[in-house]
Amino acid sequence: MNSRQKRLCSKLVKEKLDCLLVTLPENISYLVKFSSHDSYLLVSKRGSIYFTDSRYSEEVRPRLLKEGVTMVKTSGAIFDSIVVACAGLGFDAIGFEGQGLTFSGHKRLEAVLKNKGKLIATDGLIEGLREAKGPDEIRKMKRAIQITARALKFAGKAIKPGRKEIEVAADLERFIRYHGASSSAFEIIIASGPNSAYPHHAPGSRKIKNNELVLVDIGVEYQGYKSDLTRVYFLGKISFLAQQLKKTVLKAQSLAIQKIRPGIKLSEIDRVSRDYIAGAGYGDYFGHSLGHGIGLKTHEGPRIWSKAEGVLRAGMVFTVEPGIYLAGKFGIRIEDMVLVTKEGCVVLSGSIHK
Amino acid sequence: MNSRQKRLCSKLVKEKLDCLLVTLPENISYLVKFSSHDSYLLVSKRGSIYFTDSRYSEEVRPRLLKEGVTMVKTSGAIFDSIVVACAGLGFDAIGFEGQGLTFSGHKRLEAVLKNKGKLIATDGLIEGLREAKGPDEIRKMKRAIQITARALKFAGKAIKPGRKEIEVAADLERFIRYHGASSSAFEIIIASGPNSAYPHHAPGSRKIKNNELVLVDIGVEYQGYKSDLTRVYFLGKISFLAQQLKKTVLKAQSLAIQKIRPGIKLSEIDRVSRDYIAGAGYGDYFGHSLGHGIGLKTHEGPRIWSKAEGVLRAGMVFTVEPGIYLAGKFGIRIEDMVLVTKEGCVVLSGSIHK
Repeated sequence: MNSRQKRLCSKLVKEKLDCLLVTLPENISYLVKFSSHDSYLLVSKRGSIYFTDSRYSEEVRPRLLKEGVTMVKTSGAIFDSIVVACAGLGFDAIGFEGQGLTFSGHKRLEAVLKNKGKLIATDGLIEGLREAKGPDEIRKMKRAIQITARALKFAGKAIKPGRKEIEVAADLERFIRYHGASSSAFEIIIASGPNSAYPHHAPGSRKIKNNELVLVDIGVEYQGYKSDLTRVYFLGKISFLAQQLKKTVLKAQSLAIQKIRPGIKLSEIDRVSRDYIAGAGYGDYFGHSLGHGIGLKTHEGPRIWSKAEGVLRAGMVFTVEPGIYLAGKFGIRIEDMVLVTKEGCVVLSGSIHK
Repeated sequence: MNSRQKRLCSKLVKEKLDCLLVTLPENISYLVKFSSHDSYLLVSKRGSIYFTDSRYSEEVRPRLLKEGVTMVKTSGAIFDSIVVACAGLGFDAIGFEGQGLTFSGHKRLEAVLKNKGKLIATDGLIEGLREAKGPDEIRKMKRAIQITARALKFAGKAIKPGRKEIEVAADLERFIRYHGASSSAFEIIIASGPNSAYPHHAPGSRKIKNNELVLVDIGVEYQGYKSDLTRVYFLGKISFLAQQLKKTVLKAQSLAIQKIRPGIKLSEIDRVSRDYIAGAGYGDYFGHSLGHGIGLKTHEGPRIWSKAEGVLRAGMVFTVEPGIYLAGKFGIRIEDMVLVTKEGCVVLSGSIHK
């Protein structure tokens, strides 16, 4: 059992749980230290059991051995095997992830379990552990950011008038895999001209034109860890308004980053950026949160928004991405990744031109 | 309100529901006819309401108008807006998708709703409608298959001794987007030599060698619809065993396909392939299901496996993908997509060399 699993076990004692059935793939990946798919993990102080089927069993066997986890290869319904294991180990208070089972999945598990134990919902036990990143995690995220930085430099050359958005996205999808990423973290956003006003635009067949801006939002996966960065490229002559708004967004971002250190309220970071943009007259054109935690998932805790509760803690890594979107015209968003340190913060993507 | 929404409304009457809250993105995409993300849809005979936020609102507005759907732009918690709408319309029996809300999500919705209505779980109402594809859906899937066919031909050239698996995957990711796909349907599998024995291998830095086989499992997305096909490429001299097992897998596949017509049991199709492989002595080396339905999701109903209940119906599209995996040596899987017709079936990917 590795130290992550041990830390979870300490939490289970406090929650008066005999075990925890982990069903969210990113939480399983965190505990077993490799990317897990379609498999479940049962954690208890008696040891951890990984339930998987023939699609994965041979590939994960040596990795599980390394982390001291037992494997059960299932052929039928996975819940049956889990219930048998729980009964065999005499577990009564069986925790599960409230966000890791569907309503139907919970009903089905309950039906299989009958009266052989009690299902108890938990919320964020492992997510809480995941919020503060360890040295090995930060190393992987830095590597993901390095690959993304090279891709953003490459994008500067790939973006040319006459090229389709999807062609640039295609070139970037290829580039990142040649430079060490296992995949993109999400579909790369290439949003040209008026399309940049849609924060989550899907790249299409629109051809990039001269004298317009192109927004690139890209993230990669490296050994399970994600990056997520946004830059805006100006082609030819750009309107004074667009240039001004880029400055506004950059300033809003830097004001927020200056505030980042342990103990500061999450909502305060969002407020600083939002107030500045509102003060410039564009409050209604910045509709989304300021940022989100990132790690094994592109979007994870902490969410940086006005309704956030809690404070910053050292080890947290999150995006700071203010934006201004003028429908029908253009949108500007600048996104960086920040690590909270003991004294303040480090902008992990700070060396990338903006 | 379009015909898909009307068909769903007829089902709601039978289920004695005032409305259905649709939360699964693929089900929403089916009903509104565009790819929907992070948004919910409330369907009732009084009309449909789409709940989304500023990230998507401007982009989806014209598309919703076309399908006669009202949009509500939310800024806070989406459940609050939904409950307000339900109360305003006097809905009491509020259906939700049992597989579309997490255990926690359901609890949260229940808390917001208080006693202003009753939440009733439904199962597969829209998935049932989606199983039999309409002409427009089949046209899109055929286009996705055409793009994949070109990619598989390209793969034949891209796969060379000395190249890394991930490089071939990277080239294919680029290729499909240049040829009309919006994205891949899943991470492309390039599994060389012994890696082909892992059914869900993630392509890595292993270099392809001469005298070994390379398995390519690739799918693309075209206007929301997916393809999923697998071929095996032989480089140089291939062992007699591998050649024989390829013939065994091909025969197992063709025997199953010959059986496909409306009214045949789903489990029967699986049985035919499985019996043949078992008869050849490799029953223990074919661990996964024979196939799965495909459409807006890569994996959807009907699942073709030994425990499947129900029969084939015209309009169903699914994969037929027997495989034999010899750990440490190699694996062979051949995967095609089949459409059930009134008289029998059409192999939609039938023209692709295998």
